[in-house]
Amino acid sequence: MIVATGTSIHKALGDPHGPVANDATGPSLYLSVKTRIVGISGSLRTGSYNTAALSAAKSVAPADCEVEILTLKGIPVYDPDLESDQPESVRAMVQSLANADGVLIATPEYNYSVPGGLKNAIDWLSRDASKPLDGRPLGIIGASPGMLGSGRAQYHLRQSMVFLNMHVMNKPEVMIASAHEKFDANGNLIHEPTREFLGKFMSAFVEWVGRFPR
Amino acid sequence: MIVATGTSIHKALGDPHGPVANDATGPSLYLSVKTRIVGISGSLRTGSYNTAALSAAKSVAPADCEVEILTLKGIPVYDPDLESDQPESVRAMVQSLANADGVLIATPEYNYSVPGGLKNAIDWLSRDASKPLDGRPLGIIGASPGMLGSGRAQYHLRQSMVFLNMHVMNKPEVMIASAHEKFDANGNLIHEPTREFLGKFMSAFVEWVGRFPR
Amino acid sequence: MIVATGTSIHKALGDPHGPVANDATGPSLYLSVKTRIVGISGSLRTGSYNTAALSAAKSVAPADCEVEILTLKGIPVYDPDLESDQPESVRAMVQSLANADGVLIATPEYNYSVPGGLKNAIDWLSRDASKPLDGRPLGIIGASPGMLGSGRAQYHLRQSMVFLNMHVMNKPEVMIASAHEKFDANGNLIHEPTREFLGKFMSAFVEWVGRFPR
Amino acid sequence: MIVATGTSIHKALGDPHGPVANDATGPSLYLSVKTRIVGISGSLRTGSYNTAALSAAKSVAPADCEVEILTLKGIPVYDPDLESDQPESVRAMVQSLANADGVLIATPEYNYSVPGGLKNAIDWLSRDASKPLDGRPLGIIGASPGMLGSGRAQYHLRQSMVFLNMHVMNKPEVMIASAHEKFDANGNLIHEPTREFLGKFMSAFVEWVGRFPR
Repeated sequence: MIVATGTSIHKALGDPHGPVANDATGPSLYLSVKTRIVGISGSLRTGSYNTAALSAAKSVAPADCEVEILTLKGIPVYDPDLESDQPESVRAMVQSLANADGVLIATPEYNYSVPGGLKNAIDWLSRDASKPLDGRPLGIIGASPGMLGSGRAQYHLRQSMVFLNMHVMNKPEVMIASAHEKFDANGNLIHEPTREFLGKFMSAFVEWVGRFPR
Repeated sequence: MIVATGTSIHKALGDPHGPVANDATGPSLYLSVKTRIVGISGSLRTGSYNTAALSAAKSVAPADCEVEILTLKGIPVYDPDLESDQPESVRAMVQSLANADGVLIATPEYNYSVPGGLKNAIDWLSRDASKPLDGRPLGIIGASPGMLGSGRAQYHLRQSMVFLNMHVMNKPEVMIASAHEKFDANGNLIHEPTREFLGKFMSAFVEWVGRFPR
Repeated sequence: MIVATGTSIHKALGDPHGPVANDATGPSLYLSVKTRIVGISGSLRTGSYNTAALSAAKSVAPADCEVEILTLKGIPVYDPDLESDQPESVRAMVQSLANADGVLIATPEYNYSVPGGLKNAIDWLSRDASKPLDGRPLGIIGASPGMLGSGRAQYHLRQSMVFLNMHVMNKPEVMIASAHEKFDANGNLIHEPTREFLGKFMSAFVEWVGRFPR
Repeated sequence: MIVATGTSIHKALGDPHGPVANDATGPSLYLSVKTRIVGISGSLRTGSYNTAALSAAKSVAPADCEVEILTLKGIPVYDPDLESDQPESVRAMVQSLANADGVLIATPEYNYSVPGGLKNAIDWLSRDASKPLDGRPLGIIGASPGMLGSGRAQYHLRQSMVFLNMHVMNKPEVMIASAHEKFDANGNLIHEPTREFLGKFMSAFVEWVGRFPR
């Protein structure tokens, strides 16, 4: 999230003084400023509700926000013995995160907790020397066919983030219960109240991200 | 766990073969009764403290107890799309569990929770049609170089077991903190109080397992 | 839970065949056998959904089961300095628990966890020298106007029970969401599926209690 | 936390008195800026380690920070029926919090969770119309005679704060294990590494508080 004003570049949010108004002789000197969000879907499933929820979140995000959606595809199980040989899939994820202003995770719930595959990706990321998650703001959403909409997984995920020093937004929380009724077979969100709620979530999240400039 | 008393032999539930009936010519005879424990190490690391803790637990287990230690080696990340094609490594684990009276998990703590790889193995097991964990008694131990000895991971693991309907023993809890000081370079437990405590744990666990006959 | 059969006394549950009928010379030698459940409502509110849920659970309990419902009324905040002066309200609760075969807690959710007042009662009980909760089977239910039906409170409560060595039944879990739609103004359960589910819960719970004879 | 820059003075939100406006005769002037922290001890015990830990935290706090320590004394168990009749003890706590820039809770661990009395105070505060906790930054510390130093309680407390929308600092975490060895009989912290660590914690916390201006 970079604000460029003619000859000066500075961080926009959290800056108590803000940009000094330019003389108004030239044309608009403000470039459009994008909040870069990297979304990670915790499910590998084709037609995953959580990947679909990320797509829906992207579609309702504020205009000044771009969302890149990553997959866990190809990330092997973390083995400390092989740590020095970082898989290409992990390296790619680290690179995408390097310029992210905020991270958005959509998590299913497997066995009342975070899916092993998603936790595994986080474990890999936690071992990268660049600490790609450290200090970054995080939004968590989730969808599940059950009644609690992945809530149990989300609270476990929040605990991991204490250690990783991610700043998890408190509210609103998005737990899409009975997900099979809210997305169609093509992964389109067909439940308007959920779409509106996701829109509120994304607006709040972009604001939250603004509190933690890179 | 096969119990034979007097001249009768009660076949353990779920035992596909069962003991062959003895001829009843002799006097009251007791077959040796073994409690079968399957131990799962949550770490893939060569020289893992948790694998070492399982070995130590095995060495101090009551005489009427046998412990088989399994590894997560070779279990790929669970992908619902590939579920019908169960990996051989998962199938082997399911088979070992089929005759287990109790399960013993030794978990490290990664990022304040269960390692992704261990959770992933549990996710695979939960999808097997035979429900190899359902209704089985579970003991949890853990070791970590940190101060809490994997405690945070253990409580998360306990929550998963509510869904999987495993009966987790409450006490004693084994959290081996500062694990690097308690095992030598060859994975031998060199801390006597920990060994004694593990012995108490194993005795209590075998008793706990006895409450949930197959 | 004691079964007295004329000259013999034995534990009833867990025995698949039950006692062999005594010679029938005398009058009926079987005393009625009741599983004694003590229910604790985590809410002090008049018209509490959780007190109502306990009443409903009592009404659908198996015939061989009696449920006494306790309130937290009058239990002051625990102060270690005053511990030696146990309040009468706590003493009464300890006495009710002394003969309980199982304990059933109905918990609301306050601020994503166990209500302070309920946790406080548990803290008091944990300090009684008789350890009235130790080793007892526990069932947890809950009701809340929200979407998760007190789930978050229930998982926190489960963690406390590891320390207190209560054996918490895994399943079924009863989380009565949107409780205001399921009870009428007089605290009557008016939602049939919930009633049926409570009935299944109580049957499972009495069976669970039978695994942990006093 | 009152920030004055240049000749203007920004009154802190929620400050009933605010700074008196200076005459603007001089050049750019900075008023002394104090970060106001309200500390809440989760224990009522005379000689509580947690109250002692708060005192120690106060003594090592940065110079531009003032810490007021509150007690739970006199707060009765929350009863929804009596909610309209807010106890004086709760009202006093609400008033202290009204001007707080940040909140610091020191929690013991009772039965693997937050003490009922502390949770109860939080429940009361959550019902006050002014929402005294909403959006405020929170630091959590804890002390216990056990090995985990109140860690289990702290993670439960963090979950409540998701609902209450408090911004809990991630790190460093202060879990004072074996507290009986680290404080003397008069509540003085006698363990230098803990004092140094508390100093780091307080510096980090004041910085964290600065991210969430009133």
